[in-house]
Amino acid sequence: MPAEQTTVQDLSESELLARIFPRLNHSPGILLGPGDDAALIAAPDGRVLISIDTQTQDQDFRLEWKNGYRTTGYDVGWKAAAQNLSDINAMGGSATSLVVSLTMPPQTPVEWVEAFADGLTAAIIGLGAPDCSVAGGDLGRGSELAVTVAVVGTLGGVAPVLRSGAKPGDVVAVAGTLGRAAAGWALLESGFPMGSLDTEQRGLVERQCRPQPPLAAGPLAARAGATAMMDISDGLLRDGSRLAAASNVALDFDPVALKTHAVPLEPAAVLLGRDAMPWVLGGGEDHGLLATFPAGIQLPQGFTAIGSVQAVVEPPGSGVRIAGQAADTVGWDHFAD
Amino acid sequence: MPAEQTTVQDLSESELLARIFPRLNHSPGILLGPGDDAALIAAPDGRVLISIDTQTQDQDFRLEWKNGYRTTGYDVGWKAAAQNLSDINAMGGSATSLVVSLTMPPQTPVEWVEAFADGLTAAIIGLGAPDCSVAGGDLGRGSELAVTVAVVGTLGGVAPVLRSGAKPGDVVAVAGTLGRAAAGWALLESGFPMGSLDTEQRGLVERQCRPQPPLAAGPLAARAGATAMMDISDGLLRDGSRLAAASNVALDFDPVALKTHAVPLEPAAVLLGRDAMPWVLGGGEDHGLLATFPAGIQLPQGFTAIGSVQAVVEPPGSGVRIAGQAADTVGWDHFAD
Repeated sequence: MPAEQTTVQDLSESELLARIFPRLNHSPGILLGPGDDAALIAAPDGRVLISIDTQTQDQDFRLEWKNGYRTTGYDVGWKAAAQNLSDINAMGGSATSLVVSLTMPPQTPVEWVEAFADGLTAAIIGLGAPDCSVAGGDLGRGSELAVTVAVVGTLGGVAPVLRSGAKPGDVVAVAGTLGRAAAGWALLESGFPMGSLDTEQRGLVERQCRPQPPLAAGPLAARAGATAMMDISDGLLRDGSRLAAASNVALDFDPVALKTHAVPLEPAAVLLGRDAMPWVLGGGEDHGLLATFPAGIQLPQGFTAIGSVQAVVEPPGSGVRIAGQAADTVGWDHFAD
Repeated sequence: MPAEQTTVQDLSESELLARIFPRLNHSPGILLGPGDDAALIAAPDGRVLISIDTQTQDQDFRLEWKNGYRTTGYDVGWKAAAQNLSDINAMGGSATSLVVSLTMPPQTPVEWVEAFADGLTAAIIGLGAPDCSVAGGDLGRGSELAVTVAVVGTLGGVAPVLRSGAKPGDVVAVAGTLGRAAAGWALLESGFPMGSLDTEQRGLVERQCRPQPPLAAGPLAARAGATAMMDISDGLLRDGSRLAAASNVALDFDPVALKTHAVPLEPAAVLLGRDAMPWVLGGGEDHGLLATFPAGIQLPQGFTAIGSVQAVVEPPGSGVRIAGQAADTVGWDHFAD
């Protein structure tokens, strides 16, 4: 980077905050915004949903990928917001505020931080959560970039949709996409620079860097009577087995339905000489929703059926099956090698 | 460490969570605890306070200090909870839940993580916040240890005490201690190993590693009519100048009152051949409270007067004075060198 670029060590904390604050979304549900020891948020139904997620450089994203793409502050801000908005969506709620902690090396350009703030706001607005404010945050120094966002949301009076309510006979459905972020990761880690990719392939990279959780779908599912729901953050099979275990059932996926999710991944699969199905089954970062609904009800907008809930047979095997066969659990575990 | 010690990379995420969950505090205000996409917390007065804070290895604590002391998981857990509980205290509220993100190198011992969870719980109980649950969290891998906690709290129907309400003529008061954590830091960074310190000196080190924010004092101040309040996290002068600026007033500190806060620091000052007053004025991590009250009211339990609020004179100089003289702003800024 050019030597004259302003970096975060050139500014005081208050100067840096003054660059960030005007870029953040601010909605009426925030009763007291950033600048005091804590923010104050409306909780109209007397309850709040809360979750927290961290993204760390070289674990959750690379600053520079093998194909030469450089992750922008905008990407990191977008993804941090999207991940957290998705956790509230997966309970059937709507996010009302984020608090954001950004840890960064002192040589981080101020422009990167401004782009990060823009990315947060763009995700909030672009994904359909305009009532969600950035209520506060923390800035700190570290040897690597790390972003932690905690999100607070409201259920608007409905019951939360847990992982544990699926019943044998229910329909299994998904909202959003499967495998696109994983295909995008594979492209970023390939030898094919961005300039060599076609529009569809670049679209897959975008889903890795700026995921699109279907935020309208969670509250619709809660109101439609979903019996169980969760965010697919670690892959359909791995997360499916978690939902199955929590509900003490098995999920049986229809291979034909799964196959339709592989079609949009073909432009990456062909280029890389790989099979698209492992991305569908194991890729999580699209932040789609996995939900179960009573049989016979009309699925809410955005959901498509991909299988059915079955009773666990004794002795219990895998909680996830494909056309009746136990599916291997592939996906991402943070520590196991 | 011995080769046979179990580290976090030896366990799956769910195995690690199973070691952590039983160690966490769980109170009735938590409607749905860890294990789903988000937790659900009661917000009885229809509002929630929220804040977030990160501690990063080598920035906010050293794993091994110059005097040989090794920071324990218990210390880091305690401090992470204490810092966040203090932010809610400073608004006049009480914490109802924490969500905790722990990023760590894969070779981190599982015992360290268990001690971290124990430290969180010990601080919650020991500092007097038994109604505060650990509602959820996130585990991830990074090249350095980093802990981010977001805290949610309730005001129990009262108005939040902001930084901006101090009026000329008000009394300035503090609750909790000043400078002890800073004196403890100086001891940890000295050449004096722990075994060579006396009880009082070790007590100062303890305040650095396990601060004691006065959690009863914040809600008492709100109910007693405090006009402004904040957490002293970056030092009395620096934080005082922030409160003064937010309120458009000046704070005039009484040197005699400040001097009494230096007395408990003498055992460190004498050993290190240093003056205790810079710790009183610039040390922040005790997480005491700085508050202003209308003149003539009885200060709530835990508070002692240290000065008065004055009008800003034109042209405005420093917002913080000692016996009428502008005080230099010393303290901690995260980025400025």
